[in-house]
Amino acid sequence: MTAELDDSFHVFDTTLRDGAQREGINLTVADKLAIARHLDDFGVGFIEGGWPGANPRDTEFFARAAAELELKHAALVAFGATRRAGGNAADDPQVRALLESGAPVITVVAKSHDRHVELALRTTLEENLEMVRDTVSYLTGQGRRVFVDCEHFFDGHRANPEYAVEVVKAAHEAGASVVVLCDTNGGMLPAQVREVTAQVLAATGARLGMHAQDDSGCAVANTLAAVEAGATHVQCTANGYGERVGNANLFPVVAALELKLDQRVLPEGALGEMTRISHAIAEAVNLTPSTHQPYVGVSAFAHKAGLHASAIKVDPDLYQHIDPERVGNTMRMLVSDMAGRASVELKGRELGIDLGGDRELVQRVVERVKERELKGYTYEAADASFALLLRAEVDGRPRRFFRIESWRAITEDRPDGTHANEATVKLWAKGERIVATAEGNGPVNALDRALRVALERIYPQLASFALTDYKVRILEGRYGTDSTTRVLITTTDGAAEWSTVGVGENVIAASWQALDDAYAYGLLRAGLEPME
Amino acid sequence: MTAELDDSFHVFDTTLRDGAQREGINLTVADKLAIARHLDDFGVGFIEGGWPGANPRDTEFFARAAAELELKHAALVAFGATRRAGGNAADDPQVRALLESGAPVITVVAKSHDRHVELALRTTLEENLEMVRDTVSYLTGQGRRVFVDCEHFFDGHRANPEYAVEVVKAAHEAGASVVVLCDTNGGMLPAQVREVTAQVLAATGARLGMHAQDDSGCAVANTLAAVEAGATHVQCTANGYGERVGNANLFPVVAALELKLDQRVLPEGALGEMTRISHAIAEAVNLTPSTHQPYVGVSAFAHKAGLHASAIKVDPDLYQHIDPERVGNTMRMLVSDMAGRASVELKGRELGIDLGGDRELVQRVVERVKERELKGYTYEAADASFALLLRAEVDGRPRRFFRIESWRAITEDRPDGTHANEATVKLWAKGERIVATAEGNGPVNALDRALRVALERIYPQLASFALTDYKVRILEGRYGTDSTTRVLITTTDGAAEWSTVGVGENVIAASWQALDDAYAYGLLRAGLEPME
Repeated sequence: MTAELDDSFHVFDTTLRDGAQREGINLTVADKLAIARHLDDFGVGFIEGGWPGANPRDTEFFARAAAELELKHAALVAFGATRRAGGNAADDPQVRALLESGAPVITVVAKSHDRHVELALRTTLEENLEMVRDTVSYLTGQGRRVFVDCEHFFDGHRANPEYAVEVVKAAHEAGASVVVLCDTNGGMLPAQVREVTAQVLAATGARLGMHAQDDSGCAVANTLAAVEAGATHVQCTANGYGERVGNANLFPVVAALELKLDQRVLPEGALGEMTRISHAIAEAVNLTPSTHQPYVGVSAFAHKAGLHASAIKVDPDLYQHIDPERVGNTMRMLVSDMAGRASVELKGRELGIDLGGDRELVQRVVERVKERELKGYTYEAADASFALLLRAEVDGRPRRFFRIESWRAITEDRPDGTHANEATVKLWAKGERIVATAEGNGPVNALDRALRVALERIYPQLASFALTDYKVRILEGRYGTDSTTRVLITTTDGAAEWSTVGVGENVIAASWQALDDAYAYGLLRAGLEPME
Repeated sequence: MTAELDDSFHVFDTTLRDGAQREGINLTVADKLAIARHLDDFGVGFIEGGWPGANPRDTEFFARAAAELELKHAALVAFGATRRAGGNAADDPQVRALLESGAPVITVVAKSHDRHVELALRTTLEENLEMVRDTVSYLTGQGRRVFVDCEHFFDGHRANPEYAVEVVKAAHEAGASVVVLCDTNGGMLPAQVREVTAQVLAATGARLGMHAQDDSGCAVANTLAAVEAGATHVQCTANGYGERVGNANLFPVVAALELKLDQRVLPEGALGEMTRISHAIAEAVNLTPSTHQPYVGVSAFAHKAGLHASAIKVDPDLYQHIDPERVGNTMRMLVSDMAGRASVELKGRELGIDLGGDRELVQRVVERVKERELKGYTYEAADASFALLLRAEVDGRPRRFFRIESWRAITEDRPDGTHANEATVKLWAKGERIVATAEGNGPVNALDRALRVALERIYPQLASFALTDYKVRILEGRYGTDSTTRVLITTTDGAAEWSTVGVGENVIAASWQALDDAYAYGLLRAGLEPME
């Protein structure tokens, strides 16, 4: 725990254990270490790292974490199960692996639904209680802090409330410092969670936590409902990653507690890093950050409606639930054919291009955007292409640093299974005709390299440009490779990032356009004067 | 309304109006008509179609809807605002456009937050009340049913509760049949919504509705909280589409009401169509269906953890909050390197490939999957590629219908701006060497066509195959065009769809692999015997 926060409320993150169950996530040990650092930067109190012993990668994670992680705020937590039926905790190899992980805190998962005890564990209800008592008291006796996750608690409480409460009591009396009520199947609604949590608290006096899955779409609300009823420990995952629909999303839970319920749960200043950390973790798990995620999505404070745009000019706070800067996000005005003139003006201001009071110019830009969006362009996600379009309208002509005569890309598969990719570009720059050929690991990469070969002597700034993201979208839905293709490219010069769009009848033609815009914008950014 | 359901509870859909505000959505009139048909099939009571008069596309939508839509269940709703300050409703062109839309129901948006009245409308609090009264009584006098959306109601109620309640009273007394409390900025939490809704109901006696935005991640729960407090009208959008983070998602709201709160809100049998309709609407708005959406996502009932997989063999209902068939979804077992042998066996069974008790074979498949997933393959989303892998292990060799010698793809940009795409394949099938060349609208399309030219004489079944989806993902995050590329292709033969995966150092090589698998699987499906 951080020195700044006491133990009275726990933010417990299980991205590395339960979050990793999400379809499409497959973490290496290095990924897990990187994510743990982000979570610690964010200031969570506990980081559940995995199930040592059950999974070799998790065992390795704890070994490397002990050597390599220097946590500022968080305590590392190992996850495991109660001992086997009929055995005893001290001799159970799975329990021993938990101790050997070296983690100061251990979460023990216990069955609390009678049918699960009988059908999945295949033991008696009494032996299950004994397994909880024995495992918890053994681990606390070994100097570890123990939390108990009551799996399927809410379903179990519906089926057999007395037994479910017995399991909480057994864990509490054996020395668990928190007993966590889990909605493992995720089907609960907030009113049910609130009521059951309050009942269990009254019946046991145990310190309670909440672990919610999102199958009913209410995981954040269920977590807050448990807090409302007296829980003081919340188990969440970054970006809501988790099995099936996912887990309670750490970010809206923490933001609601801090910004709406006056519960201080993070170190000073941490909330302002939330957007950055959410995106960094998405990168680390290799998923595109969800654009529409509450608080941290790029769309979370984006305004599109013409109606709103004009009022936002008067007072932005009337149209957003919080100041986006409090969570490290920003308000954005979207350019789209639904937007009116007010949006275009605001967007121009955001990009530092003054459209002044020139109504005719603004109208021309609106028309041009509509016409391009009909063809499949999107400027919502391609600020740099929009800035070039604006500049072209302001200046009365496109601002380019080179003019393409033609290009060609060839990909060839050889009988030995290797591929060759070669591209040739023919272009004019500063009055000179240049022909260049390059190879790459794919046709777009070969084109990118050929363009650099051709231009780097004339524009040495290009050497600092690197593509950081490349997205392909097939438009018009269900037509397979016969459709229009839209490519979005993100480029960096080391200091800033910008995004450009290209649309074409195939992926290479579309990529080429986006590359062309990316280079033009980058050179403008570098302060160069266009040649024409 | 459907004959089966009375007027006591309203499911009101605003996908076509508020949902269309989502970043990335741009609907044509034809799209809107298609979506309206899906919503009507689903059995919602009200479909808000747009703002006639404010937007030419919406005006056209109502004109075409009157001529072309035959709604079985839903009433069409036109959305508009209260009349202008200082005018009167009967002469207001915007109000007239609402009548001219021909919609039997009209939603009138009214300001209910005092600062919005003063800063955005720039009128007095009293005149705003008069605008509500005049507009509602004029429209009801013209024979329309009127609902009033109180914009920014919850923020307004916090700032000036008396005034916010005055607006509800004004609407109710002027004849609005429902007064809808809107959390326009989406920042509320369920406990606040519940409390305020109950207070307003007690103070006014008006029939109340709820319109929630999802900025706090609680839109579904906020909608249910209002119902708990007595609201009998819920405004939602399909898949939660909407401005910023989005609106309350129709599907989990309706499923919670029907399956968890015993509130009958849809016609008999409609809930079982929910997954299909959710995906069909995603197609219509040209967004990929969210894989992790509650109830209807392809991951919503997908199990990955080895721990769960073995227990699921005992009793699936212990591990899911509802039977997925009730919402038209299915349970899936995911194949991934986190999954153990039990998952592979279950998956084999799902695909109709019996792995029997052959532990060694199952282990070999698990190893093979791990090894391929390390290279970037994913079998979670590529059942057909996984089936080919299973078949290859069962049979002891890959089952192929042709053998590739080499291929080549060329894309060329001409000085006139047009592109040429040409591909050549050299392959062996049934002992014959075939060389074929074809053109396409892109390099992958050209390869696809060349493959068909080469093979259709030998395998006429290929003529029925069509690509229906094509997805490209750059792996390893932030490396631009220098990274590994994964392609997922969905193919249909008119009767079924199957998905295949390819991984390579560039998009063409990866597409080629996915195409190769797609053809092999399709020919196996057609009952053909592989040649080798």
